[in-house]
This record gives sequence, structure tokens and C-alpha cells, in this order.
Amino acid sequence: MSGWVAIAGLGPGDEALVTPEVRAALAEATDVVGYIPYVRRVIPRAGLSLHESDNRVELERAQHALEMACAGRRVVVVSSGDPGVFAMASAVFEALEAGPPEWHELDIRVLPGVTAMLAAAARAGAPLGHDFCAINLSDNLKPWDVIARRVRLAVEADFAMAFYNPRSASRPGGFGSLLDILRETCEPERVLIFARAVSTPEEALRIVPLSEAAPEMADMRTVVLVGSSTTRIIPRTGRTALVYTPRSVRA
Amino acid sequence: MSGWVAIAGLGPGDEALVTPEVRAALAEATDVVGYIPYVRRVIPRAGLSLHESDNRVELERAQHALEMACAGRRVVVVSSGDPGVFAMASAVFEALEAGPPEWHELDIRVLPGVTAMLAAAARAGAPLGHDFCAINLSDNLKPWDVIARRVRLAVEADFAMAFYNPRSASRPGGFGSLLDILRETCEPERVLIFARAVSTPEEALRIVPLSEAAPEMADMRTVVLVGSSTTRIIPRTGRTALVYTPRSVRA
Repeated sequence: MSGWVAIAGLGPGDEALVTPEVRAALAEATDVVGYIPYVRRVIPRAGLSLHESDNRVELERAQHALEMACAGRRVVVVSSGDPGVFAMASAVFEALEAGPPEWHELDIRVLPGVTAMLAAAARAGAPLGHDFCAINLSDNLKPWDVIARRVRLAVEADFAMAFYNPRSASRPGGFGSLLDILRETCEPERVLIFARAVSTPEEALRIVPLSEAAPEMADMRTVVLVGSSTTRIIPRTGRTALVYTPRSVRA
Repeated sequence: MSGWVAIAGLGPGDEALVTPEVRAALAEATDVVGYIPYVRRVIPRAGLSLHESDNRVELERAQHALEMACAGRRVVVVSSGDPGVFAMASAVFEALEAGPPEWHELDIRVLPGVTAMLAAAARAGAPLGHDFCAINLSDNLKPWDVIARRVRLAVEADFAMAFYNPRSASRPGGFGSLLDILRETCEPERVLIFARAVSTPEEALRIVPLSEAAPEMADMRTVVLVGSSTTRIIPRTGRTALVYTPRSVRA
């Protein structure tokens, strides 16, 4: 059986953030599967079939990839960012575990990438420069209560925090509820960074204190970073301020 | 003033994981500064000065970089992994904030990279496929009590966890204390992944239940990943098992 699956991260958008490892896998592939906008980032060529699918069909897409690899195809499953962070890798392993025994013996690799929070943090400075957590705010796959409890504990632990998928048309309220929890548990000066579509032409970065944050500042292309209690802002003249979390915590 | 500073992530070790953006910055640089083993990953060329420094002199190194950029040099500060995750970016901003006003107006960029936990997770499957946190276990810069409290809250929040710098010659005991906390708070089957020097020739991956974990399994080149309560192992014949954390949490 010569087929394989590579679950690859395309990074946040800029081609200069795609690793050579991912480029090499795409060059060897016979098939690319993924969510429409990610597959459209792959340059078409003879001998490469592009299989686009819609959002919310992750398991079907994963099954399709595993079936093709079993039939001898060389399949790249593309995600944006890193495939292991709120992306396709877990979906592929869920499908694999529930699937026929031959899928377990497939040659399957995960190719890491620059996930959105790292690109967003880099643009702002180093807000994740000390201990931090990453939370998916979508409640499609988990109840809101779990999210709310996790956020409260993360604030208590004084993590910096990165929130993926903060807000969508079908979930307009969740991000407002998150802001309510933060207002209850953090000081009004707490630093928030709304980083939209980082490294693409639509990039927008907004740094605001919690007291000025509003739900409309986020959408599905935004990653929201929240500093810890020690996060600092360095204002600059004629340039965007720098945000960083110091490496030390005093005793 | 034409000088600049780029704080760049070289990824976990394999040159195929260095982004084209970082390559381009290195190609334009006049000076590279960093910890000895990271600077040695940069290929020497005419017109490029390499400034190696030892561990634990991060602030001095950062000051040196900022001074050179102020004098018109094009300086790349190299970190392994991502510069914003337990690496040089925060040190540079600490130095900048404490330094002379002209440093504030410098052209300074952070170039993200593939941080160690993402490379380690990719090798194991997708153990960070749901909400997770990253904790630096070094107590050089924070008291152990802060670390211990944070770990207990992270377990309570049911995050998957990534631990950087778990163990060194000067801190032999901390990682053992971490295992004690995990044994107190997690079930014995909890999945641990010891990922050493991922993507280098010395790479070693070990997947063990908490009940079999021992301090000697970690050193300074190891990232330790700890699953959440929902993390699963898919055993395979003749291949390393796959570890993943499902995307869903049931109500």
C-alpha cells in the first residue's frame, strides 16, 4: 500500500509562512482535501485533484481522505494555521478510530504550521510570552458551561489567553458572554488584542483595554488575545504600540 | 535610521520547518544574535556577523541587538521554535521598555515559527486538538508555588497541557513535583507524551500512562505533553500509537 495521508498546516495566510515541509508534501500529492478557502490556497497543477468541501463536514472529509489513501492515493488534508490546533487533525483521527481496521495501518503524518495565535501574538509583540492557554469559543462541539468554567479557571490561573472562533453569524452571543465573564473577573485595564486575518491583505489589529472591548470587534476571522495580569503595553510615536507579557513572576 | 530588529523563530530543528519569511530576514541581515546552538543553525556568509551568547544572558543579548539596530544594522535575534513562546521576544521588549527613548521608535518585528509543542503534538497525532495550555516549568523566573497552583487549575479546567523546560541539571526536582501533582489530581491512565528534540536526528517520542511516568524521562530538550481527561490512544500494529484529543465535549 503506497498511499498516505499528510494533515498539513498552511499557516495563517501569507505564503511566506508556509513551511518547506508542507510545500514538499503538496508537491508529491495526488489529492488535496479541505475546506473551500484553504484548498483554494493550493496552486493547481496536472496530476493533482483538488477536493473542496464546506464547513461542518470535517468527519466526511476525513473519511474521504482516508479512503483515498487506502486506495493508494497520496492525500494532503489542508488546514489553515496548524492542523493540530482546532483544525483537521483531530477530525481525521476521530474518523480513523471509528473506521475499518485497515485505516489504522495507513502511513499518516501531521505537518505542523504557524497557528493563528502565534501569528497574532507576533504582530502585537509578545503577549503570549509567559504561560498561556488556547480556547475554542465555538459551542458547536461543547456546551457553553464548559467554556465559561474553563475561562474562569484560566483567569484564576493568570494565564494569557487566546480565543479561537470567537463569533459567527450562527453564534452571535457567546463572545459577549465571554466579555461579561472577563469584566467580572479581571481589572478594566486588562489588555485585549483583536487580531483579524493576520498576514493577509485584510489584516487588522486592534489593542484595547477590557473596559472598551465590544462584541462587534470580533468575527470568525479574528483571534482574540487577552493578556495576563502582568501584560504590559509600550506606547510608541507613529507606530503601533507593543504588547508583551514579561517572562518573570515575582514571589 | 535604516536599522531594524527581527525576532525570528527557527522552528524546532529541521530546516524544512523554517518559514520562508525567516529565511528572507536572515538573507537581509547584517547581524545575528542568539544563544549559541541557535546561532550555529545560521549558515555563515560574507557580510553577516554572528554573535553567539550563553544561556541566561537574554537581557544583555537583547540590549546588544537594540543598540546595533539603532546604529543602522539589520539584526535578527534567533530563537528556536516560536520567538513569542518562552523565548527571546519578551526579553527584547523588556530591554526595550527599560532602555533609552530612541529604542522605542525602532523598526522591530516578530517573525513567528513552529513552536516545540506543535511539532511534538504533530508527531504524536493531535493531543492538543482541544483547549490546552502551555506552561514553562523553569522556576528561574517564577516561584514554584505559582507553577503548582497554575497546574492544579489547569487540571481542574481539563486542559491538555504542554510543559516546556521540564528539567535541567540545576533544577532536578521540579519535574518530579509536577508528576506528584498530576498523580494527586488525574487518573493513572492519563496520557503523557515525552517528546525529545523533535525533528532533529536525536528525536525520541515516548507515550506512557501517568502511572508509568518517571522524572528521568524528561530533560531540557524534551517537551512534555499531558492529555486532557478525554485524550485517546489509537494503538497500531508495527507503527507508533496515535494520540489525539477529540474536538467535542459532551454536555
